[in-house]
Amino acid sequence: MNKQYVDLNSDMGEGFGPWHIGDGVDEQIMPLISSANIATGFHAGDPNIMARTVQLARESGVGIGAHPGFRDLVGFGRRHIAETPQALVNDLLYQVGALREFARLHGVRLQHVKPHGALYMHAARDETFSRLLVETLQQVDPNLLLFCMESSATWRVAQEIGQPAIREFYADRDYDRNGSIVFIRRIGPLDPEQVAEKVLRACVDGKVRTVDGDDIDIDFDSVCIHSDTPGALQLVRGTREALVREGIRITGPLATAASL
Amino acid sequence: MNKQYVDLNSDMGEGFGPWHIGDGVDEQIMPLISSANIATGFHAGDPNIMARTVQLARESGVGIGAHPGFRDLVGFGRRHIAETPQALVNDLLYQVGALREFARLHGVRLQHVKPHGALYMHAARDETFSRLLVETLQQVDPNLLLFCMESSATWRVAQEIGQPAIREFYADRDYDRNGSIVFIRRIGPLDPEQVAEKVLRACVDGKVRTVDGDDIDIDFDSVCIHSDTPGALQLVRGTREALVREGIRITGPLATAASL
Amino acid sequence: MNKQYVDLNSDMGEGFGPWHIGDGVDEQIMPLISSANIATGFHAGDPNIMARTVQLARESGVGIGAHPGFRDLVGFGRRHIAETPQALVNDLLYQVGALREFARLHGVRLQHVKPHGALYMHAARDETFSRLLVETLQQVDPNLLLFCMESSATWRVAQEIGQPAIREFYADRDYDRNGSIVFIRRIGPLDPEQVAEKVLRACVDGKVRTVDGDDIDIDFDSVCIHSDTPGALQLVRGTREALVREGIRITGPLATAASL
Amino acid sequence: MNKQYVDLNSDMGEGFGPWHIGDGVDEQIMPLISSANIATGFHAGDPNIMARTVQLARESGVGIGAHPGFRDLVGFGRRHIAETPQALVNDLLYQVGALREFARLHGVRLQHVKPHGALYMHAARDETFSRLLVETLQQVDPNLLLFCMESSATWRVAQEIGQPAIREFYADRDYDRNGSIVFIRRIGPLDPEQVAEKVLRACVDGKVRTVDGDDIDIDFDSVCIHSDTPGALQLVRGTREALVREGIRITGPLATAASL
Repeated sequence: MNKQYVDLNSDMGEGFGPWHIGDGVDEQIMPLISSANIATGFHAGDPNIMARTVQLARESGVGIGAHPGFRDLVGFGRRHIAETPQALVNDLLYQVGALREFARLHGVRLQHVKPHGALYMHAARDETFSRLLVETLQQVDPNLLLFCMESSATWRVAQEIGQPAIREFYADRDYDRNGSIVFIRRIGPLDPEQVAEKVLRACVDGKVRTVDGDDIDIDFDSVCIHSDTPGALQLVRGTREALVREGIRITGPLATAASL
Repeated sequence: MNKQYVDLNSDMGEGFGPWHIGDGVDEQIMPLISSANIATGFHAGDPNIMARTVQLARESGVGIGAHPGFRDLVGFGRRHIAETPQALVNDLLYQVGALREFARLHGVRLQHVKPHGALYMHAARDETFSRLLVETLQQVDPNLLLFCMESSATWRVAQEIGQPAIREFYADRDYDRNGSIVFIRRIGPLDPEQVAEKVLRACVDGKVRTVDGDDIDIDFDSVCIHSDTPGALQLVRGTREALVREGIRITGPLATAASL
Repeated sequence: MNKQYVDLNSDMGEGFGPWHIGDGVDEQIMPLISSANIATGFHAGDPNIMARTVQLARESGVGIGAHPGFRDLVGFGRRHIAETPQALVNDLLYQVGALREFARLHGVRLQHVKPHGALYMHAARDETFSRLLVETLQQVDPNLLLFCMESSATWRVAQEIGQPAIREFYADRDYDRNGSIVFIRRIGPLDPEQVAEKVLRACVDGKVRTVDGDDIDIDFDSVCIHSDTPGALQLVRGTREALVREGIRITGPLATAASL
Repeated sequence: MNKQYVDLNSDMGEGFGPWHIGDGVDEQIMPLISSANIATGFHAGDPNIMARTVQLARESGVGIGAHPGFRDLVGFGRRHIAETPQALVNDLLYQVGALREFARLHGVRLQHVKPHGALYMHAARDETFSRLLVETLQQVDPNLLLFCMESSATWRVAQEIGQPAIREFYADRDYDRNGSIVFIRRIGPLDPEQVAEKVLRACVDGKVRTVDGDDIDIDFDSVCIHSDTPGALQLVRGTREALVREGIRITGPLATAASL
């Protein structure tokens, strides 16, 4: 282990119309991260916010990713909706394409796709959906990085089929024994120092403490800090500083899929 | 005048979820036209319908176009919404990109964009909006054909800036003295023979009778027949047969913009 | 058994904006039924359609019911959405109130509420949700009839708490051994004679054949025929005629709850 | 002039799903006002927020009002949508009924209705719409107070027909010479002392300074302070204190319509 570099990603552009979420600090967080997951309109985000956020990312040299979710504005994409894999993949393509157009407008490539919220967890658990998703990505864009957890069907299928995938470490979520995050609807404020330490330990020792108090091994390519976690800016700043202090460079993701 | 070929376009994929509109005869109309304007989700269409319609168009060798509208499902994009040019262009880019992704999935190029309903009429009248739209299209896709009326700000600005544009003739709408169509919310059944004759006369003589009973000159590159006009299939079939009988070939649009 | 009267209910007003569903024959079906379940905007229906449908029901002397569903237009309320009981009850109250206002405008009382699609099935299976729903109805309107299946948590809880409930028999759905309907997304055309016979047998003998070929006992207060089943008008007409021929009167529901 | 009492109203419950607007201080503002305009889902507000806000208002003894808007979440109801009077009235009834159901749940009466944003301004200017609205309110609830400006078609028609109406004074908006407010999309922070003084002067002297620097006469029954104005809590608190200091009691509205 002992990483020399790591990607740092955060969800960006998660307002809608006049509304904002979290502390509304996208502009301050953007320069501190290396990958932005930009909401694509189904769970959050609208065309104006998307246009602004893509421009913001480009100005900060941050990798642009689509962050598609369930079609569920009022539930912010955190509610599972029972649907066929094909319909969900179509929903995702629609959203990816919408964001890609703004990237095209600004002359940058779409770097990655990361399903949001309940759709991310659904992909992690449902191999049929993950398989159709990965096969479809192979068809539309075989270089598009797919963000996921190592302990997920998404990762396994991406490895098998050869879509480049990026494993995430969740700085602001708890882990269970299987290396899966414990999905919760709302999250309270966290201590920036503890979060930074947790990330550092994961980067240096490859270990994380689970909710049951055990240590498990963890490997990953990107650290995720959610921008709607209260005090997100402090968490990102603290984590970034801790990593830099340790000599770990924050840089765009290098895919680790078999195909690369 | 006396055209040797003309494009024939129709709106496709205008259902939503379980609902359909008009006679629900996209599959029969598709093989008869040369350009499909595919609804992109804001006024009609959903990702499943878009996926299916793009595939249908590709199978029939029909040119694929985005048909973006105002964000107004319940009003089917027929209601004007007061909004800034920039926000409307962002709405349009979002929708164009969404459709482009399905074209990408099927390995075909996006041929054209045609704003829908009240957005089309708004572009026709509002030069500021048309200008920003055309400038933006120049940036994202200078080859994307823009469908419009000859008597519109859209056409004038496209000519000026050099975005390839396609002038439409409306087989199933009435014209006023300025060569502009009379926008109505609902349309009754039309006589297929009269419609075919009207199109033929426009193609051969370059004339159309206005609602006031006068003849005006008209020039165009594509004939539009709306698929939600009652009896649309008969209108398309009758028009196609009349054109073919006259030796006028129905073929994809050849842009007539200054830049081509 | 051998009923002397029975209620006949159907879903009405399930269009949205310009779109229609099924055969679009609400106006012909309305005079043939005694209770109308009117879509309330979350899965189908919009304020204009609701206004029109309430008026239509009043003119035919048909009992007016709210037909609230999951907030899911594109899925027509047929997809389960994971949500807390309280949030679902709030969604339902919102929709019930919206319809009640149109009843108020036309000077008629709201007769019943019947959850739609996946929400109906969720209530049938989830006692916690059904309990909160029934308790809430007791508070807002203790006389509002709640439509449900006899083999459901909804019925059991309504009986226990004393909210008047109406048990339905599904003329156009198949039953399993537990007396529960087999939920399917799309349904093909049915034979009007077979449907009428099935209803008649249920009314006279209190029996229905299950998908496994067994007969089970069934009791109910209202017969439901879905208006979006293809050929719905023929099914309703045939069933009505068969009932009338047998001397069974079609009339508004008489609640059978303990409290009445 | 020299009022002895006045109503103080504010827009409440204008979040949506996880999002909030302004400073998110409904709970602090509620006890300081006497009438709450509660968003009803079309421009803001969802059933959960509505349930919570109605309860909050009841606990503070604040009059409950429906605050219906254009169906336009992303535009927050601030964009005019071209639509027929009947369709707009249907939209409004739908929303009023939805809120009324939550009032019913909490055993309180719906006190008033106040159209939101662009719909308020549309009613102010369009007599045909105002007339249909007032006639419809007469039918569904002849005691429901209608909030409006004195210089509006709404006020004139309500006077004529006899629907009780409440004239508002806008503490945080600028006036033109006609006594109409200058509608703007975004508003900057205001000085609480200046706002309080402006309200006091209007209450005591019946005068307000216009954007052109002139004084005009103004009469009203209720003072409105928008909760999404930055620093709204300070504005409400400062205004309340100034009024109380001057001996002007803040109390629920007493309608001034001819009919009362």
